[in-house]
Amino acid sequence: MSAATPEHIMQIGLGFWASKTLLSAVELGVFSTLADGPADLPTLQRTLALHQRSARDFLDSLVALRLLERENGIYSNTPDTDLYLDRAKPSYIGGILEMANARLYGFWGSLTEALRSGELQNEGKGGGEDLFAALYADPDRLRGFLTAMSAISAGAAHAIAGKFPWSEYKTFMDLGSAQGMVPATLAHDHPHLTGIGFDLPAVKPVFEEFIAQRGLEDRVRFRGGNFFEDPLPEVDVIIMGHILHDWDLAKKRALLGKAFDALPKGGAIIVYDAIIDDDRRENAFGLLMSLNMLIETAGGFDYTGEDCQAWMRDVGFSRTRVEPLVGPDSMVIGFK
Amino acid sequence: MSAATPEHIMQIGLGFWASKTLLSAVELGVFSTLADGPADLPTLQRTLALHQRSARDFLDSLVALRLLERENGIYSNTPDTDLYLDRAKPSYIGGILEMANARLYGFWGSLTEALRSGELQNEGKGGGEDLFAALYADPDRLRGFLTAMSAISAGAAHAIAGKFPWSEYKTFMDLGSAQGMVPATLAHDHPHLTGIGFDLPAVKPVFEEFIAQRGLEDRVRFRGGNFFEDPLPEVDVIIMGHILHDWDLAKKRALLGKAFDALPKGGAIIVYDAIIDDDRRENAFGLLMSLNMLIETAGGFDYTGEDCQAWMRDVGFSRTRVEPLVGPDSMVIGFK
Repeated sequence: MSAATPEHIMQIGLGFWASKTLLSAVELGVFSTLADGPADLPTLQRTLALHQRSARDFLDSLVALRLLERENGIYSNTPDTDLYLDRAKPSYIGGILEMANARLYGFWGSLTEALRSGELQNEGKGGGEDLFAALYADPDRLRGFLTAMSAISAGAAHAIAGKFPWSEYKTFMDLGSAQGMVPATLAHDHPHLTGIGFDLPAVKPVFEEFIAQRGLEDRVRFRGGNFFEDPLPEVDVIIMGHILHDWDLAKKRALLGKAFDALPKGGAIIVYDAIIDDDRRENAFGLLMSLNMLIETAGGFDYTGEDCQAWMRDVGFSRTRVEPLVGPDSMVIGFK
Repeated sequence: MSAATPEHIMQIGLGFWASKTLLSAVELGVFSTLADGPADLPTLQRTLALHQRSARDFLDSLVALRLLERENGIYSNTPDTDLYLDRAKPSYIGGILEMANARLYGFWGSLTEALRSGELQNEGKGGGEDLFAALYADPDRLRGFLTAMSAISAGAAHAIAGKFPWSEYKTFMDLGSAQGMVPATLAHDHPHLTGIGFDLPAVKPVFEEFIAQRGLEDRVRFRGGNFFEDPLPEVDVIIMGHILHDWDLAKKRALLGKAFDALPKGGAIIVYDAIIDDDRRENAFGLLMSLNMLIETAGGFDYTGEDCQAWMRDVGFSRTRVEPLVGPDSMVIGFK
């Protein structure tokens, strides 16, 4: 007991201070501004419309959090924040943090209520509109959400392109493709592949713009539909990324079964998410993502590789395996 | 650039997930319950009134965050959480996290607005009641706040008792004493000392109960008053812990000047806070605490050791020095 200190507890318990400071910095455009060039305090205060009272504390907090650098009073981005938090770069991942800032931070304030009731705490709370209905009804909100999903899928997309035996397959479909980061990455890295992005019809213009920007429109097309209700196109490989965790167990099984039925013999499914380690004690991000599904969805939850492989075998896949991708994400592969 | 990854950014940006999970666990009494004995999932779900949907994800998230242990399906506290987050133990520091959960998490949601306006975002927003007026008007809320302040002062109190030359002094006063953790610790560790806790009159019953529980009422007394308006008692050493950062520069200087005037020649002042390192790039907690003062007070801010020593010398203290205490806290000492 003599080794016990309160530091770890306090660091996590007041961790929302650092978190919200970064979220506000993304909202205020700190990193996009500094991507245009380093700047001193008065310049940043004016450009970002910061009040004098706390501008310096705010920026120096970001320095202490290793999100900015400061030399002789001149602030600049770190290599990480310059690459990932400059809105002008295709590598921008701030979309997910913009969404977290505008929506999730507040909704997570009701976590205790969610843990007691088992009910979601977002726009859909108390019978309000469903998350996806809300997101997909407003073009600007939809674009923001889809960009955010691209941002958090980029690393996984590259890993999937490299770690799956694509030379043995010709066609693929990304179910719940959003903007199309995975289809674009696969088609770019493997010129023999043609693919389909499948998502709700409202996604079409955003998807087609993203694919056309990359010059891949001859090999990657969009199919609009509802993946629970509409038939799935015939392809060799079906991918579901950050999709399965949105749904309850019955719908998870239904989606996997529908994919199995649509695949040819020899076809494969790739499911990826922040897959929880089988012993449920290492992947904190995956476990917390599952609590995020509590906040965001009616019945969704994250799951272990073992869980997913068992569901895949139940619906008929013969061989299954789990492979880590990047960060907290892994993929589960099933062969028909 | 090839070494850049988004992990550090995502870990901080979504850090509010882990933070709120711990805050909800404290609110729900997870650690106090487990202090009575380890328990399995069904027992905890029932005892804590958790909905079945996410009870396991919630508890396993706490395992992955190293805040709980789990062996063969039986959950138990870690040594840290058992000592610091069991409400029944005097070492409980959960009061500050209860306050963070009930108040600060939500108020910090308005950080961007605070950074733009320079205005506080708590109960006092838009001309509402002042933080201290709000806290001190309601006995339950006051007790919670004072307990929280004891919790975050305990480590510093022990360090101050050990690192200051108390043998050279006989009397002290803790200005803004709250419940009395510092006076109690000093009187306990140094039997030759007598001391005064000075705070608003509403604090008296909570202070006297705390001191009496420790059998120190013959050497530690309470003095009710407003430290800006009322005269200060004559003592050898004046202590101000987590006080100076609440106020703007003019009030900081006024408080230091008033302390100087009240001290005898040879007397000393001890100021402690989450003192920011002079280069303002290491003590992230101190810098974020200063943003917390933006959220919580009209003009408060945290400061470096150099700042504080300069203010002390300006009001007349001849020798000053800074000494680290525990965690992010340091003390600045001034001798008259």
